[in-house]
Amino acid sequence: MALPPAVELRRRNRAALLEQLHRHGPQTRAELTEALGLNRSTIGALATDLADSGHLQETTGQSTGSAGRPSTLVACVPQSITVSAVEIRADRLRFALVGLGGEVLERSETALEEGADAMTAVAGLTRGTAAAAVAAMPGLVDEGTVAHSTELGWVDRRVAADLEAATGREWKVVDTATAAAVGEWARGDAREARKLLYLHGGRGLTAGLVIEGRAQRGGSIQLGHIVVEPGGRECECGLRGCLEAEMEVRAYAEDIERTTLAAGMGDGAARDWLRRSGEDLGRALGAVVTATGPDEILFGGWLRELYLSTAAPVRSALAETTLPHLRSKLRLRTPVLGDEGALIGAAETGFEAVFDRMR
Amino acid sequence: MALPPAVELRRRNRAALLEQLHRHGPQTRAELTEALGLNRSTIGALATDLADSGHLQETTGQSTGSAGRPSTLVACVPQSITVSAVEIRADRLRFALVGLGGEVLERSETALEEGADAMTAVAGLTRGTAAAAVAAMPGLVDEGTVAHSTELGWVDRRVAADLEAATGREWKVVDTATAAAVGEWARGDAREARKLLYLHGGRGLTAGLVIEGRAQRGGSIQLGHIVVEPGGRECECGLRGCLEAEMEVRAYAEDIERTTLAAGMGDGAARDWLRRSGEDLGRALGAVVTATGPDEILFGGWLRELYLSTAAPVRSALAETTLPHLRSKLRLRTPVLGDEGALIGAAETGFEAVFDRMR
Repeated sequence: MALPPAVELRRRNRAALLEQLHRHGPQTRAELTEALGLNRSTIGALATDLADSGHLQETTGQSTGSAGRPSTLVACVPQSITVSAVEIRADRLRFALVGLGGEVLERSETALEEGADAMTAVAGLTRGTAAAAVAAMPGLVDEGTVAHSTELGWVDRRVAADLEAATGREWKVVDTATAAAVGEWARGDAREARKLLYLHGGRGLTAGLVIEGRAQRGGSIQLGHIVVEPGGRECECGLRGCLEAEMEVRAYAEDIERTTLAAGMGDGAARDWLRRSGEDLGRALGAVVTATGPDEILFGGWLRELYLSTAAPVRSALAETTLPHLRSKLRLRTPVLGDEGALIGAAETGFEAVFDRMR
Repeated sequence: MALPPAVELRRRNRAALLEQLHRHGPQTRAELTEALGLNRSTIGALATDLADSGHLQETTGQSTGSAGRPSTLVACVPQSITVSAVEIRADRLRFALVGLGGEVLERSETALEEGADAMTAVAGLTRGTAAAAVAAMPGLVDEGTVAHSTELGWVDRRVAADLEAATGREWKVVDTATAAAVGEWARGDAREARKLLYLHGGRGLTAGLVIEGRAQRGGSIQLGHIVVEPGGRECECGLRGCLEAEMEVRAYAEDIERTTLAAGMGDGAARDWLRRSGEDLGRALGAVVTATGPDEILFGGWLRELYLSTAAPVRSALAETTLPHLRSKLRLRTPVLGDEGALIGAAETGFEAVFDRMR
């Protein structure tokens, strides 16, 4: 049955106020009035209400946006709403319990033995009190199912259901690249990007797209399977000439640092590989940029090291395969959250669901 | 100032009811109660209200979904809310005035002389009574500006502002391919597609993406400028080996019917071109599919004829460049609205804005 209108409106305003403080940090009541377009008295009543329920507290300090003398700020109580975030990799699990406002309250990491069940390990790390639970993992993830993951070796695995069975609670499942894109947008310095493309280098190459703060529906972009050399090397996906196959990702991903070091010391083979890989990556990116039109690209995972040592070939191959109009507004750089992006983004995805549910 | 909650809620329910009838056609009150999740008495009050304001009328007949004897249906009054839709092409303009519920109330078409100003011609076709006005045109369109249009020869033209100056009213501007995708989703038979990719063949090749009924932000995909032959033929965009250049789009777009006819009669050059073009198109599509993951692709404009005569090479080149997981759920076909798609989609884009404004 529909709620009475006044109750429904108050719920929506509560959600909007909490989301505002979660995203932007402590603020004065005047700033909140301005940001949310509500009356001063409405803000006052909501803040009192949410302080009574233990979600907000008043502190003294300076809000992010303002200079001048300290004033009374409204701030989140981190423990009042928490989200469990897990990042699953082939060889380890990382866990964070993140509180309202973005503070990481707990953090742990565990190695996964060869053949160990990731779901059982997740159950060992997480507890049931969080308002939402989100797991990030590399691959083509859509609606709770991993259709294909080069890195984890999973095909059509119903991960959300498996996680629920192992832990007794509901899980949201996202891909690592998209989670990292969300993380960089929400907590990194990519907030200005309208369309943010995050490239993730793991044992495979994927990309995630965030459009105006929201993850693109339907999961990650299979960057590693853009065909850059028709009829080229055989790829394990069954195609020929995929970026992953041409770059010999399997052979190089594990020791990119050694390769860049060797190239720096004059190793001809390492140099050649870096240059060719940069060109292939730039060419694959050209197609992705033409199809998706991002204004910012972040090179994450081990693609960070690759990009830092091959920016010139990447850029020139990209220039040869991207319309000048799409290229002119494009920024290329490395992520500020580094390896933490996917875990933070998974938590933010959870908070998004929490706020959506409140409305 | 914020509206009182009850007023705001009533507005939102009015918008939801009108949108439901606009999209799905006449329905009984019981069906509306079910579809909108509102009380029967609320639906009754809303319907009476909207009948009084002239938006709805009661008729007798059968709703789309049901069999059995005719019953009393609630239906839109088409004239109560109208949208002006215009499609701008290089050589002509098409106009439709579309009423609430999707009925085309007026329709006209005018040739554009070489060098004529499209904006003045639009002003001559449209009148000021419509609730929204939307213009579709081929090219890379974003936030009221045409960044680049091969077909119209425009670069960074602020079309929304130009249209407003010529007609004295606000315009929304969309690209032809995206408009056609919206049209096929809303009024064609592509409603089941989660991600619908519409390919438009005009003097250039573009594509539009509709995700769960909403146009992808940031405008069309520049399909014609996916590089399919690195270092290949020079394209007028400045790159080399673009799909448009390799397919010699300029030379063939105008007489695709003659080319397919010639090929059918055994003309070797025409056959070769069709086969090569199909392969190039399939390869470019492989990259777009890998980047965007559609579940349905429609071949529109003159690509319709091309696809109908080269489906085999298109499909086999696509198979060589697309992950099996992405390919397995993909349907390829031709649009049911044919040439009307963009105009209908422009009108639907206008109605979407009208309903959003009502809330």
